[in-house]
Amino acid sequence: MAVQTAQNAADSTTSVDLGPAAALSCRECGERSPLGPVFACQACFGPLEVAYDLPVGDPEGLRKRIEAGPNSIWRYAPLLPVPADVASQPNLNPGFTKLIKADNLARELGVTGGLHVKDDSGNPTHSFKDRVVAIAVEAARAFGFTTLSCSSTGNLAGAVGAAAARSGFRSCVFIPHDLEAGKVVMAAVYGGDLVGIEGNYDDVNRFCSELIGDPVGEGWGFVNVNLRPYYGEGSKTLAYEICEQLGWRIPDNIVIPIASGSQLTKIDKGIKELIALGLVEDRPYRIFGAQAEGCSPVSRAFKDGHDVVRPVKPDTIAKSLAIGNPADGPYVLDICRRTGGAVEDVNDEQVVDAIKLLARTEGVFAETAGGVTVGVLRKLIETGAIDPAEDTVVLNTGDGLKTLDAVAPTTGPSATIRPSLEAFREAGLA
Amino acid sequence: MAVQTAQNAADSTTSVDLGPAAALSCRECGERSPLGPVFACQACFGPLEVAYDLPVGDPEGLRKRIEAGPNSIWRYAPLLPVPADVASQPNLNPGFTKLIKADNLARELGVTGGLHVKDDSGNPTHSFKDRVVAIAVEAARAFGFTTLSCSSTGNLAGAVGAAAARSGFRSCVFIPHDLEAGKVVMAAVYGGDLVGIEGNYDDVNRFCSELIGDPVGEGWGFVNVNLRPYYGEGSKTLAYEICEQLGWRIPDNIVIPIASGSQLTKIDKGIKELIALGLVEDRPYRIFGAQAEGCSPVSRAFKDGHDVVRPVKPDTIAKSLAIGNPADGPYVLDICRRTGGAVEDVNDEQVVDAIKLLARTEGVFAETAGGVTVGVLRKLIETGAIDPAEDTVVLNTGDGLKTLDAVAPTTGPSATIRPSLEAFREAGLA
Ligand SMILES: [Zn+2]
Ligand SMILES: [Zn+2]
Repeated sequence: MAVQTAQNAADSTTSVDLGPAAALSCRECGERSPLGPVFACQACFGPLEVAYDLPVGDPEGLRKRIEAGPNSIWRYAPLLPVPADVASQPNLNPGFTKLIKADNLARELGVTGGLHVKDDSGNPTHSFKDRVVAIAVEAARAFGFTTLSCSSTGNLAGAVGAAAARSGFRSCVFIPHDLEAGKVVMAAVYGGDLVGIEGNYDDVNRFCSELIGDPVGEGWGFVNVNLRPYYGEGSKTLAYEICEQLGWRIPDNIVIPIASGSQLTKIDKGIKELIALGLVEDRPYRIFGAQAEGCSPVSRAFKDGHDVVRPVKPDTIAKSLAIGNPADGPYVLDICRRTGGAVEDVNDEQVVDAIKLLARTEGVFAETAGGVTVGVLRKLIETGAIDPAEDTVVLNTGDGLKTLDAVAPTTGPSATIRPSLEAFREAGLA
Repeated sequence: MAVQTAQNAADSTTSVDLGPAAALSCRECGERSPLGPVFACQACFGPLEVAYDLPVGDPEGLRKRIEAGPNSIWRYAPLLPVPADVASQPNLNPGFTKLIKADNLARELGVTGGLHVKDDSGNPTHSFKDRVVAIAVEAARAFGFTTLSCSSTGNLAGAVGAAAARSGFRSCVFIPHDLEAGKVVMAAVYGGDLVGIEGNYDDVNRFCSELIGDPVGEGWGFVNVNLRPYYGEGSKTLAYEICEQLGWRIPDNIVIPIASGSQLTKIDKGIKELIALGLVEDRPYRIFGAQAEGCSPVSRAFKDGHDVVRPVKPDTIAKSLAIGNPADGPYVLDICRRTGGAVEDVNDEQVVDAIKLLARTEGVFAETAGGVTVGVLRKLIETGAIDPAEDTVVLNTGDGLKTLDAVAPTTGPSATIRPSLEAFREAGLA
């Protein structure tokens, strides 16, 4: 894989305006490098993340400024790697999705301390990916890229295609050639280029890495590769929104799905920033990670007491979480252990049951990833890992309309009858 | 059909609190009757609608109260038939969806005066039906109903199932037995009863009418039958939101899909209320109705200069608009003529083209109904019926994920290639 290091790109990115973003910083060795389309540390090849000059010192003023902002992630522009005028740029304006007071679900699960569902199916393309892509788009603008790209088997393809269309970028998205027809439509409908690659998802990723190192890929922003440090920051907004929507308060427990693990680490980062800025009171909180049993390398490592995550070959209906070698696995383990949380997994049957439980109690039809988090929440309460007298937020990161197949075999009519009152009475549904 | 008139229900509904709703009023003869679960005038069997005591006299105070309200239709509670504390009741909190500044689409269509898309795919179950059902739910609560019901072939089934789940009602939804598998899943997943009726949609409706007149249906609120006067009022919120989101201003033109025609008439009613309350300046505006050619009885009547709508047998991919005998057709004709608007239609191919146009320019994947409105908008601009120098709002009332079949045959990858740079260069997409 052709790794573009900080030094290569430094020259062209000296005067980039990405708001409070000050530099890139290595998560392993701490080495700083200028803002640019790079993702690996020059010193140690560790992953880079955005370092900020955050607006400390006036929490009341900052809180008012946020509350007066738009109903999207851009209300938090002062805390994100985006220019101050970001909301006036054409983009999908994702975020500020509903935090649902889930009293019915709480009753079913025996939770008495308060339960909320953060429902990211309310985003423009109905998954949390709109958040991270929106930040990547602003980085792409700043670095002068003209094409947005990614490899994807699902939500990300739609999020990139839609964001590119609105924001005035060309898009070129790569998918395995044998993706289901419905998913191809969702990825292709936004009119960008969609390229089927003869091979599996690993082959697609390998090909994209080649493209980034080749002149053919010049001017291309791969949202989750060379724009990854920016992209990842989008997940911080989930923490900001949850805390603001709870009245600027950190909940006791948050249950978060794990794919690469990036989202979980950024939610923790976001909470720490809110504390540092004085926007919320510092208090203990627990972060819980949720995986599907068929792709549970982080859960395995957590339970075995390991610091290293051993890769697995995914086999689960929760396709959007099916990353067998999660890049942020070790960081996830660290956060869940440090905060007193846990990582847990549920099998496919439990995922389906949890999707139905959430739909039946709260009228929220979740993607399989939402079945994983709600299923894990149920398990964590049953095992006592989550205290039902505490207040908990569980994430639903996607939309059930995109994973109909998961519930289809077990979801159907209560009865089929002739159109007569007699037949209806006989069916016993009156 | 067993028509329940105002008199039957009057006794049990003397002390109903539905906020500013004062009575039901006949749209034909003006006869008033008390608030109750009735839909036909006792005097003339005309359709009933809600009459209000609106909070006139303090527009500035009302505007501030609305702006300080929740990010849902409940910000307009003072103008809706709901109790003042409605936002604290468990419900899906629909509405306040994005009004998208559609500069890219405007450029393609040659619109220079401003173009916005009101995107109701952002509602909880991704269609405008969440608005109308939410109002019906409050009426059902007020009248002591315990079961929510409807007949549906699509969006309404999901909206009722989800709303009932959240709001603590039982639901029982009736569908034709041979509905596509995906739609059955979307209707059944919320866990209420779903009953397949052996027959077509007309048979389902006839059966529901029997149920309403029978003891078996006691305690049942059919959202669009015996709760219809309340249900319909939910569409007023589209007018409120459009005007508020434009800075408390009425746009020059609004393009609205026509199914029964109710939505269009209620948007006009909503605008008139805003004017009467002093929330917006009184100025001319034009209302345009949009139909699919395969179900265009109102467009036909408009073009022929008729006041009466001749029923048709629907044959179009825009299933959510396929009502061959639209109950509010004459009112629609009246409004479009009075305001200087028009009713126009487009064929299925134009619907598909318009879905893709909207997706490609704005990253919004619309249901077929959105293809109808955008297609009609394009046609109205081409024919000069809409002045491109004026500002226009076009409605997207549903989500493309629910009508994938419409675009699937013509939406696919740009290319399928081997995973090599050479193959990519040869494909001509670099
Ligand atoms: Zn390093
Ligand atoms: Zn009458």
